[in-house]
Amino acid sequence: MLTGIRIAVIGGDARQLEVIQKLSELDAIVTLIGYDHLQNAIAGVSKKPLQPELFEELDAVLLPTVGTDDHGVVESIFSAEELVLTGAFMERLPKHAKVYTGMAKPYLRNLCAEHQIRLVELLDRDDVAIYNSIPTAEGALMMAIQNTDITIHGSTCMVLGIGRTGLTMARTLKGIGARVKVGVRRAEHIARAYEMGFEPFDLKDLTEQAVDVDVLFNTIPVMVVTSRVIANLPHRAVIIDLASAPGGTDFRFAEKRGIKALLAPGLPGIVAPKSAGRIIANTLCQLIQEDAQGRNEAQ
Amino acid sequence: MLTGIRIAVIGGDARQLEVIQKLSELDAIVTLIGYDHLQNAIAGVSKKPLQPELFEELDAVLLPTVGTDDHGVVESIFSAEELVLTGAFMERLPKHAKVYTGMAKPYLRNLCAEHQIRLVELLDRDDVAIYNSIPTAEGALMMAIQNTDITIHGSTCMVLGIGRTGLTMARTLKGIGARVKVGVRRAEHIARAYEMGFEPFDLKDLTEQAVDVDVLFNTIPVMVVTSRVIANLPHRAVIIDLASAPGGTDFRFAEKRGIKALLAPGLPGIVAPKSAGRIIANTLCQLIQEDAQGRNEAQ
Repeated sequence: MLTGIRIAVIGGDARQLEVIQKLSELDAIVTLIGYDHLQNAIAGVSKKPLQPELFEELDAVLLPTVGTDDHGVVESIFSAEELVLTGAFMERLPKHAKVYTGMAKPYLRNLCAEHQIRLVELLDRDDVAIYNSIPTAEGALMMAIQNTDITIHGSTCMVLGIGRTGLTMARTLKGIGARVKVGVRRAEHIARAYEMGFEPFDLKDLTEQAVDVDVLFNTIPVMVVTSRVIANLPHRAVIIDLASAPGGTDFRFAEKRGIKALLAPGLPGIVAPKSAGRIIANTLCQLIQEDAQGRNEAQ
Repeated sequence: MLTGIRIAVIGGDARQLEVIQKLSELDAIVTLIGYDHLQNAIAGVSKKPLQPELFEELDAVLLPTVGTDDHGVVESIFSAEELVLTGAFMERLPKHAKVYTGMAKPYLRNLCAEHQIRLVELLDRDDVAIYNSIPTAEGALMMAIQNTDITIHGSTCMVLGIGRTGLTMARTLKGIGARVKVGVRRAEHIARAYEMGFEPFDLKDLTEQAVDVDVLFNTIPVMVVTSRVIANLPHRAVIIDLASAPGGTDFRFAEKRGIKALLAPGLPGIVAPKSAGRIIANTLCQLIQEDAQGRNEAQ
């Protein structure tokens, strides 16, 4: 339970509703900032405007997936008003308070460092990244079905990288009946891919391996799908790049060659906001709970 | 090979291009009717208008998935002209010729019977229906991903019927990580569903089984998803009905209760026209070949 814990949720999208619901179920004292368009009332949750006094008794501040932009603006789909997080708010926070977000830009990192407030980036965590890889893989599969004129069952798919997202992607594709080639670098990844029934190959052979691919899924956030690789792909191939923007694909060359290449960022919030919200809610509530216990024990 | 075999392809959509390509590869003499907007030329294939003389030397006539409408009109996405198949054409056909289509309406059945021309309905065949169930299941999966705010992985899906489409649907869902409940009637189907790792139940218990379902896929072409069943579904549930129109769902009641219910007809041609075309092409070419061999041996 989070009885007595004070949390401000600033901005966000549909995912945050799951988080707010769960915080309320666990009996936290929740203040919503930037939710003036939200209709449904939730037990124990109040809406307030962004004001410095609010921060004085908080234990945690929850920001959206992308905490703030480069100027401190916090996105909210539930409000037309601009929310800007500045030092005027942070200086009021108790020193034990933490700021939680998906991932932070330098602005937010600097702001927290300046006021000695600890910042937790949830998407940095392995568990969150693995849970999030499930909606990512389903969204990418949906894009593959939409953007090809063949079935994925029986097609030749290629997944580059077998990390947290790559492994889920490869398993999902194999689950619906695709032939799955997996491009990796390390011997233990070759072994794991082989054990799981994929066809592993060394990434240095990517260009030669590209010739029979129907759908290429990249999860490696550096330029791997180069013009040489694209030149070797069949003309019908589709590239779906799941690596964080700007991805690992030479999109300019793909367009020149007439090969469909799609950058797919932020799929969890798009294809499964409720599941994505639950992932954040579960991890966040656990972290806040552990934190509160830690403080109690220290007292 | 189909050397010397004369085939007319009348109307159709993108699927037919795969068929035409394959017929041409097998050296058939192919005449396209209703393809005046088709740009790419294919070796050994000529385009002609619909005229009775054309029919005099044909071995086979190939119509689209839905052969004709109730008035003999043959659909073609490659022509603005109306194509109407009448007795004036059929009477010119040699008696050994066959008419191939996906499924025939009474108009076409009567027309063929009247002129003693054999009619082959490809979608009636078990093999074609099973191959077609692959793009159907992928299309339905795509709809499920699009129309829910949760991941299918970890969700509770229900499949009604474990025939040619139901089995593929259940396997596909399990493949991506859903919990799959399967509603059937026969003891051997309960056994098969159990063997495959699904959770089988008797359809007479459908109403009680509905309470925890996230996505319900129906493949049974009679009214099974009744208002009583729908009343027991969670409010978040989505119904995807894959049975031939009008489906097996009380859509009126679903709308009244605010439950999303989608009738999904003809998914293969929509999500994977190339694969769907190949399925038809493979079966069709084999049938025409067997036919020609039969005639040669009889001579």
